[in-house]
Order: sequence, then C-alpha cells, then structure tokens
Amino acid sequence: MNPNDTIVAAATPYGFGGIAVVRLSGSKANAIVKTMCQHPSSFLDRKATKVQLYKDKNKPFDSALVTFFKTPNSYTGEDVFEISCHGSPAIVEIIIEAAINLGARTADPGEFTQRAFINGKMDLVQAESVAGTIHGLGEKCARLNHRIISGELTKKIEIIRKSIIDALSFVEFELDVSEEDPLNDSVLQILENLSSTRDEVSSLSKSFKEGRLLNRGASVVIAGPPNVGKSTLFNRLLNENKAIVTPSPGTTRDLIDASVVYNGVSIVFSDTAGIRDVEEEIEKEGVRRATEKIHRADIVLSVFDLGSQLQQKTTTGSAVIVPVLNKCDLYNQKQTYKIKSKINNCVYVSAKTGDGIENLKNHILEALDLSENISDSVFLITQRQYDVSKNCILALDRAISLIKNKPVSFELLSIEIRDSLDAIDRILGKTTNEEILNNVFSNFCVGK
Amino acid sequence: MNPNDTIVAAATPYGFGGIAVVRLSGSKANAIVKTMCQHPSSFLDRKATKVQLYKDKNKPFDSALVTFFKTPNSYTGEDVFEISCHGSPAIVEIIIEAAINLGARTADPGEFTQRAFINGKMDLVQAESVAGTIHGLGEKCARLNHRIISGELTKKIEIIRKSIIDALSFVEFELDVSEEDPLNDSVLQILENLSSTRDEVSSLSKSFKEGRLLNRGASVVIAGPPNVGKSTLFNRLLNENKAIVTPSPGTTRDLIDASVVYNGVSIVFSDTAGIRDVEEEIEKEGVRRATEKIHRADIVLSVFDLGSQLQQKTTTGSAVIVPVLNKCDLYNQKQTYKIKSKINNCVYVSAKTGDGIENLKNHILEALDLSENISDSVFLITQRQYDVSKNCILALDRAISLIKNKPVSFELLSIEIRDSLDAIDRILGKTTNEEILNNVFSNFCVGK
Repeated sequence: MNPNDTIVAAATPYGFGGIAVVRLSGSKANAIVKTMCQHPSSFLDRKATKVQLYKDKNKPFDSALVTFFKTPNSYTGEDVFEISCHGSPAIVEIIIEAAINLGARTADPGEFTQRAFINGKMDLVQAESVAGTIHGLGEKCARLNHRIISGELTKKIEIIRKSIIDALSFVEFELDVSEEDPLNDSVLQILENLSSTRDEVSSLSKSFKEGRLLNRGASVVIAGPPNVGKSTLFNRLLNENKAIVTPSPGTTRDLIDASVVYNGVSIVFSDTAGIRDVEEEIEKEGVRRATEKIHRADIVLSVFDLGSQLQQKTTTGSAVIVPVLNKCDLYNQKQTYKIKSKINNCVYVSAKTGDGIENLKNHILEALDLSENISDSVFLITQRQYDVSKNCILALDRAISLIKNKPVSFELLSIEIRDSLDAIDRILGKTTNEEILNNVFSNFCVGK
Repeated sequence: MNPNDTIVAAATPYGFGGIAVVRLSGSKANAIVKTMCQHPSSFLDRKATKVQLYKDKNKPFDSALVTFFKTPNSYTGEDVFEISCHGSPAIVEIIIEAAINLGARTADPGEFTQRAFINGKMDLVQAESVAGTIHGLGEKCARLNHRIISGELTKKIEIIRKSIIDALSFVEFELDVSEEDPLNDSVLQILENLSSTRDEVSSLSKSFKEGRLLNRGASVVIAGPPNVGKSTLFNRLLNENKAIVTPSPGTTRDLIDASVVYNGVSIVFSDTAGIRDVEEEIEKEGVRRATEKIHRADIVLSVFDLGSQLQQKTTTGSAVIVPVLNKCDLYNQKQTYKIKSKINNCVYVSAKTGDGIENLKNHILEALDLSENISDSVFLITQRQYDVSKNCILALDRAISLIKNKPVSFELLSIEIRDSLDAIDRILGKTTNEEILNNVFSNFCVGK
C-alpha cells in the first residue's frame, strides 16, 4: 500500500439505484478526472459540475456530476473527486477501469479514512466512529458516533493526556535538576493528580459497556425449554418493528439473529430455537452455539410456560436474566398470581396475541441500564479503546503505588507515567503500531 | 400520487458503504433541508455545503454534504437537494424520517424521473434509457443509452414526426379549402413522402433487435443431452470472466443464469442442466422451463459429444443454433474431421481444458450479427417502443394503400396519417396514457 498512489473505489454500496458515487483521492486525481471527462478547464472547489464520462476518446458512456474537494480541505486531506453517475454497477465498473487506465489503483478497504488519519484530518477514535456510524443502528448510536467524530471524545482524552504530561513533567524535572528530595507537598500533589486522572480514565473505561451497547446493539437471547413459544415470541418482537434479519455466520438455513430499534437503541434478538431444532446428529453443536450466545448476551429472556420449569442457567455470563411467562392468554389470574409469588420480576406475555409485549420491551430497555445523560455523553465504543484504557489504568495504579511506598523512585515513577501516556496516545492513534492500525481500517468497507 | 408533494428517497442502493445519498425534490425541499440542517442562510446552487443533520433540536445525528440544484435546472425540474451522508442504512432512515416529519413524503419507484418527464426535462424514450443505463451491463449498452439520453433517438423520431405532420398538413389543406380534386402530382408527392417515412420507421423498428440485445443482454442457452458437459461448459464460459450470477425467479436452489460481458456486449448464459437435473417428480416442469428458455433465446449452444447425437431442436423459436462438440481433448483428428464433414459450422471445444473457448466466444458474438456501426447508432430499446413503432407502420401502410386505391378519400387518409402521428407521439410519451406511463416508471428503482 503506497500512500502516494492515487486511489479509486465505489463509495456507494453495490447495487442498482438512482445514483452511484465513485471516489478518487491523490495527487493524480485532478489529471485523471480531467482526462476522463475531457474537461479542459479546472474544476471549481466543491462545485457540482455536469460532465460527460469517456473511456475511449469521443465515445462518452455516461453523463455525471463531478465534485472536487481541494487539498487540504477534503476528507482525506488530498485532492478528492466524487463522480456521481447513474446507479449502475456496470457504469461504476467502467469508471473504475477508466481511472485505472489513467494511473489510479483500486483502494483497499478503509484506505480513504486511513489517509484522512495519516494526514491528520482525524485521530483513531474518530476514525473508529466513522465505521461505527456506517454499521450502527438506531439514532442513539448515530448521535454518539457523531459526537465522537466531532471531537468530543478526543477532547476528553486530551484533557487526561494533559494532566498525565503535567505529572510527568514534574517528575522529570525532579529527576533532572533537583538535588535534594522534593518537598513532601509536591509528591502529594502528584499523587492527587494521578489519582484523579486514574478516576477519569476508569470512568471512561467503564463507559465502554454503554458505548458497546449503543454501537453494536444490545444482544438479547431468547432461551428456554422446547415448546414454550420462543420462536413465536421472537417473531412477535420483530414483526411489530422494522426488523433487519441477518443470518448468523454458518447458519444460512436458520435465520436466528435480527436487529430492531427500540427507542433509538438497537437490539439484536437471537432465537435459540433456530439453533436447537436441528437434525439430531448436529444437536450437540447447536447446544454449544446456544450456550455460547447466552454467555455473551447482555440480556437473556428466559421463557417458560406453566407446563415447563423456569430454567435457572448457571452459564449466563454477565447477562441480566429476565424471566418471561409466555402463553398468558391460556391462564387465569389465579395461575399467574401463583407464579408472581414465586418468581421475582417475571414478565407476563402472550406472544400469540401480543399482550404484554410493550411491557417486555420496556423491561428490556430498563435491564440495559443506560445512563440518563446518554444523549450528551461520549463513550468508548471499541474493544481496542477499552483494552488500551485498561492498560492506562494499570500503569497509573503502578505509579500511584510507587508514590505510596516511600522512598519514591522518580526513575521508576517516570517509566510508569510514561506507560500511561503511551496508552493514552495509543487510544488516539498517535503511537499505535502499524499492525493494529491496519486491523482497524481493514474492517471498513471499500470506498470509505 | 400528488405531483405537488415534496418527495424524499434514498438515491443509492441499500447497504453499508462510504457514502449514501438521500434526494429530495419539490417546492418544500428548500425549507425542509434548511430546517433539518439548522442552516439559516440560503444554499448556493450546485455547491457542496458541509452541514450537521438534526432530527430533534440541538442533537445532530450526522454530518453531511448538501448540494442544492435550483429549479428549473435540476434533474426533476423542481428544487432538488442531495444529502450525502455516511453510507449507513440507519442514517438514511433517520434522514428520511426527519424529512417526512418536516412535510415530505417517500417517493414512489421512478417518481423523480417521472417528474423530470412531466416537467419536460426528458421525453419517454430518454426516461426509458435512464432505466436502461441503471440495469444494463457492458460498455456498448452504456454508450447506447447515453446517446439516447443525450437526445439522439429523440432527434431521429422528431424528423419522422415532422414529415408525417407535413403530409398531414397537405391532406388537411386539401380537405379544408380545395374545391376540386388535387393535382395528381401532389398526391404522388404525398405517396412518396409517406413511403419514405414508412421506410424510416421500419428501419427504426428493426433496430429493436439490436437495441434489445444491447440493453438486456443476449440470451444464450446451453442445451443438449445429459452428460455432454453442459455445466462444465457453463462454468468455463463464466469463470474466464467476471460473471454476475443471478438466480432465475423461482429457482433459488439452482443458479442457472449468469451474465458476462464479451467485447462490451452483455451475454446472459442459461444452463439447462440446472433446470433438468432435478428430482423425478418435477422433471416435467424442468423440461417445460428449458423448452421455454430455448424458445426465447437469441442463441442456442447445442452441445454434444461423440457418444451422443446432436439434437435437432424444432422448438428453438428464432434462435441461432450453434453446434458445439465438447470433450475435444478426448478425440483424435480423424474423429473430429468426421464430424466436420457432417455438421456445418460446428465449434470444437474442451470445456475441461478451455481449448476452443475463445473461438466459441467469437462465434457467439458473430451469431449475434450486430451492425458494424453499433457504436454510433441509436436503436429502440424497449418492447413498448417496438410495439408502438409497429402500430405506426400499420397506419402508414393503410394510408399508402388508400392513396394507391383511387379515388383517394382525403377524409380517411387524414385519419390514418393522424394514427401514425399518434403512434410517434406515444413513442415519445407526448400522448401516452397514464397507465402505460405508470407502468414505465414503476419499473424504476426508488430514488430515481
């Protein structure tokens, strides 16, 4: 991957539509587009210009709108062109071929955003939120990623960074010039600074729980013994909403995952019935997968009816278990009252009639325990950010205990504080190694 | 469908990508976008303006580029806005919801182009080529539709229209004012005009054969007895090219249609093996479908080997039959020579080794018998255009025979010439009835 190449890719998804957009970025983009459009004069910055597109001379194959984004004020920081043509896969292919003939190469996944990162147009948490925006569902996720792209998380992290640098400067000053032991007061001041910084990082780190929920959707698994109506409940929860049903990897036959948006939050429902009701010989594999799903879930709806026992799972990981008594249309008040006295917080529904479904949705949202100020906060949203924040906390903890265990070794202290600074810099991508960077960007789609 | 409404739709295909574009058109578009972007000042015509998008006040959910196309110089002729946001289905949905909250409604399929048509931005053949461009494959198809959208077919039809109007004017003048029989010379002049016009329409009508081939792709069916290697040949023809494999309607299990582009021309290969090798009980249905495919094909590759007979189909419709001897890697020269002497134009291939495949491709392209000037001509591309052109020819024929069978009734002559004019106007959509118009546009995708 040569960052000096001019790259080209379809920026819109593959398919038939009104419009498709092909994007070019790089120093040759201007010359390539001028030739492709046989356009003698210069393109004006950010002006949609109507052009004809040529692959061979004198034989236009489409008309299009070209918009030029002049370096450095473009998405990538380089000269960028967006060619908006008819929404035809064939036309997109011809444009890309023509661009390649004129000296461009096809972009790798995420390479436009990677160039934006390299050219200082955004840091790594902003870049990760670009991917988060594209793949996220629900308004709350969109807003969260928008706040991060706008720099709100960066600002928060930069404040932490500054206080670590302040502490580090003091320690290094002591190392360099101080000939006598520093004043006790000064050391206490550092201790206080580092402790409060640690709290800041810790609260940021904890925010990942909500960030992950918003960014990837909350995982809600529907579990329970056979014939309690798990699939009926699954369908009921989806049918009342616009659901995006996606096959799980490896289970093209049984569509068991589906996303819906409740109150701006994306919920991914998994129906374990789809995994378990398979031919006998692969039953074991089905149970293994169901168990794994339950283990990773945020919420498990433990469905039962009066003819079955409520299953008390021991393998639910950190999931909140919501007991759900189904088939309530069949039972009288006395029967349900009995259950109520035995099982705490049980939700009563009839998947068949739809009774109690709204109530169940509210229970699910409550069980997610999202903060009240979710609309204004920024959270960590990727496992990478979370893991690095944990490293930062560990380094700060080590620094703090160094101070507490006198006499203080400023040399060791400096190393630990540097470690915490390094972690912060890695969150922002300032010092992240290339392999991790490539990993982040390879999860993007081509054309972004 | 109210043409005064402001309409909104995603203009790009559904999916995850770098960019998605949402389009608005109508008198309220300006007010809606200004509110959605909380953008106090006016948008400049054709200027990509960076904005924040809001659904609720003070809570932006994405940043985007907005481009304004001011009436009447826009695609639809109305005020048009293109909102280019992150390529996320969720963001697209939020934008559309926000626009609907502000007074827009979702567009019907093809409604943007229909408005362009209603507002005189394009005629019906141009609109049909917009759809042709989107769904077409191959450069030759793209170029043909581009020429039609640019008005080349319209110009050709307008010339025909003018000569019909000239003839009609003369006849009606005779009807209105002439008190004596018109001069023989004048009648001969009309006859000559109408005959030459008829030739023009006829040659345009005949051009549909090529127009259809380019626009929809040539249909090439691979037929023959079992075990001659039909599926191997099918795969060989596809694998050497970027193939777009599509399931036939109703046969999701057997992928039997695939498009490839040879020399800029799209070829849709159908493997009848996929239809026929099914469980016994539905064998009959399979044969029926294979027969139907063959009947509608442009070319039938009749595959055989030395162990089988070349099938002499009587049900091939108008298809060109290309005999293909497969498994040539197994035969010696003497054996193939024997075939050569018996079967005309036989093509020798080995689907297994790939030998002879390039030659077969050339045979297919030759059998399509495309004109030499295919890169500069315009053709009729839709069945509708073709059917109406046929009506025009019939009316002109009736007019011509009226003149030939003296005495000439100018009253009847006028009616027939009017009929031919009406047909021409229907091709261009000047007098096309609403049902047919709706039919044309309903084949578009939403957002175009």
